[in-house]
Amino acid sequence: MNIALDVMGGDYGPGVAVEGAVLAARKFGARITLIGRQEIIESSLAQHDTTGLDLPIVPAPDVVEMADKPTAAIRAKPNSSMVIASKLVSSGEAQAFVTAGNTGAAMAAGILNIGRIKGILRPALLTPFPTRKGACVVLDVGANVDVRPEHLQQFAIMGAIFSRHVMSVPDPKVCLLSNGEEPGKGNQLVIAAYPLLQNTPGINFQGNAESEAVVSGDVDVLVSDGFSGNIFLKTAEAAGAGLQAIMFEELTGSLMGKLGALLAKGALRRVRSRIDDSEYGGAALLGLAGVEIVAHGKSTANAIQSALRFAKLGIESNLVDEIKAGIDRIEITETLHQAPADIDTAAQPAK
Amino acid sequence: MNIALDVMGGDYGPGVAVEGAVLAARKFGARITLIGRQEIIESSLAQHDTTGLDLPIVPAPDVVEMADKPTAAIRAKPNSSMVIASKLVSSGEAQAFVTAGNTGAAMAAGILNIGRIKGILRPALLTPFPTRKGACVVLDVGANVDVRPEHLQQFAIMGAIFSRHVMSVPDPKVCLLSNGEEPGKGNQLVIAAYPLLQNTPGINFQGNAESEAVVSGDVDVLVSDGFSGNIFLKTAEAAGAGLQAIMFEELTGSLMGKLGALLAKGALRRVRSRIDDSEYGGAALLGLAGVEIVAHGKSTANAIQSALRFAKLGIESNLVDEIKAGIDRIEITETLHQAPADIDTAAQPAK
Repeated sequence: MNIALDVMGGDYGPGVAVEGAVLAARKFGARITLIGRQEIIESSLAQHDTTGLDLPIVPAPDVVEMADKPTAAIRAKPNSSMVIASKLVSSGEAQAFVTAGNTGAAMAAGILNIGRIKGILRPALLTPFPTRKGACVVLDVGANVDVRPEHLQQFAIMGAIFSRHVMSVPDPKVCLLSNGEEPGKGNQLVIAAYPLLQNTPGINFQGNAESEAVVSGDVDVLVSDGFSGNIFLKTAEAAGAGLQAIMFEELTGSLMGKLGALLAKGALRRVRSRIDDSEYGGAALLGLAGVEIVAHGKSTANAIQSALRFAKLGIESNLVDEIKAGIDRIEITETLHQAPADIDTAAQPAK
Repeated sequence: MNIALDVMGGDYGPGVAVEGAVLAARKFGARITLIGRQEIIESSLAQHDTTGLDLPIVPAPDVVEMADKPTAAIRAKPNSSMVIASKLVSSGEAQAFVTAGNTGAAMAAGILNIGRIKGILRPALLTPFPTRKGACVVLDVGANVDVRPEHLQQFAIMGAIFSRHVMSVPDPKVCLLSNGEEPGKGNQLVIAAYPLLQNTPGINFQGNAESEAVVSGDVDVLVSDGFSGNIFLKTAEAAGAGLQAIMFEELTGSLMGKLGALLAKGALRRVRSRIDDSEYGGAALLGLAGVEIVAHGKSTANAIQSALRFAKLGIESNLVDEIKAGIDRIEITETLHQAPADIDTAAQPAK
């Protein structure tokens, strides 16, 4: 097993990414190839005990910046750590590509360099979302803002496979994100996708779900277009953060509040840890001919370690082959095979 | 001023609605006409001191149930409290219609009986959303799940007028709900609506907004299709409720947590009151030739009082005439005037 880590992405710099790789290599014993500026990686590695760890370096002189235009940057910077890391997967030298860099560029690198699985219409970005009972995987969360019903069908298949094999949910409950639970609720897209998901073999489709059911933990795979899925995810994060900010203001605004918070410190810490999503390490781009994990820009060394663990689980569970088999089980008519013209990256040939 | 209150809607029964009317009449001095089963209203009123209050009764023998199909129920139950209450507005006897009943039926009653303002393509459901600094009005939150850019333009105009006249925001900041703040982010709908809103006179359009900016209180009017707007609203509610549930579990799960929560009781109560949206009393259906407020099904007497206050503000601020004037200021081309065929209620003639 070989995981290609772009150490130049991430808001906290290459030192943090290298530290995450050291932690992961020590914990899981995987080979992690570090891609980036050689002297920076070497000096970062020198700060850790790397005895017995398998951490080869592949030098990359260039860097894709956070402000770069995704597809253009991937085409214009062949010597960037992101491009070289993703190409290690397409050449078969690595099985997974992990980066905390520019999300759009990471998706473009995956689609252009690793390539889509044959039959996949649109790769989708999946994120585990912490619920009251564990986690629900949500896809798409932003790779495809305008989709058709057959795309949602493929998202459902890929999400169910991910939930089963990576999240270890034996028979994941798949739902469509909608504005009402009853069949017939939803916009035209959801209404058209509903019967398609009902008739998809190999998934346990449970109909429409509203946000409350997802937060409660009654859904394992939440299927959505990338626009609504992104709004779902960001709204939940913003509402949680807003409520915590209001609590902080009120607790610190009075002596009794401060004392109470001090006494309840342990309980409040457990609350934060239950809603913390960094243990999942980021988002997975599904539908590619290799595993790709896009970590948060603000990833700590621990978050990078989690992203590498996530990548390892994807490799060990044969995620790519499982998705291939899952997509082969459904019939896709000729018209559905046409890549849409509005997303430039999706028009690349499938592998 | 006369506000028509359907007392038969609402999960807590007519007694609670009547109590809300008594509270509002005492506080604001408005005439509130109570529509529903006469003997029930009379016996509810007998439990309160109504000296000097103007609370006439209009008997209605029938009731629209929560499970009824909206448009069908409004057509099949001409003697229901909801239909009679909405018709008091169309006949000019009342200026506002308030109900805590079946939301879909309430919308159908408004559109069929009160009727649209001339030029309004789609009435929209608006809800005030509590933010860290106050409230942002969000529309549409579910009346129109599939919309066109010109619908969003009208929502923006109506939302800005509501914010200015009912929420007392002098120059409300109007944003499009999107998956990114930069111009060009969004699905096809948002991207097409963006230049339209930029060129709309009388609104202070500030571009796209993500959920975090809304929660922070940086947006006064959030414009969205009814599908995404509904998901925004329900996700924020669900995430807030989920976080509170997790906090309750952790605080009551240990002695120190319990003690801390006891000490911080006042602070925690202030947190709940800051995120409580019941002071707004529900949603407003905008674009009709009269004021309509759809209160939560689970409205307490206080929430009904808030909904009635909301209706009174709408009447006093000439909301309907302001919207008429706002819509007259923009040019709507002939094709935009065609009501879409997919929403039966929207196909009714405008008044």
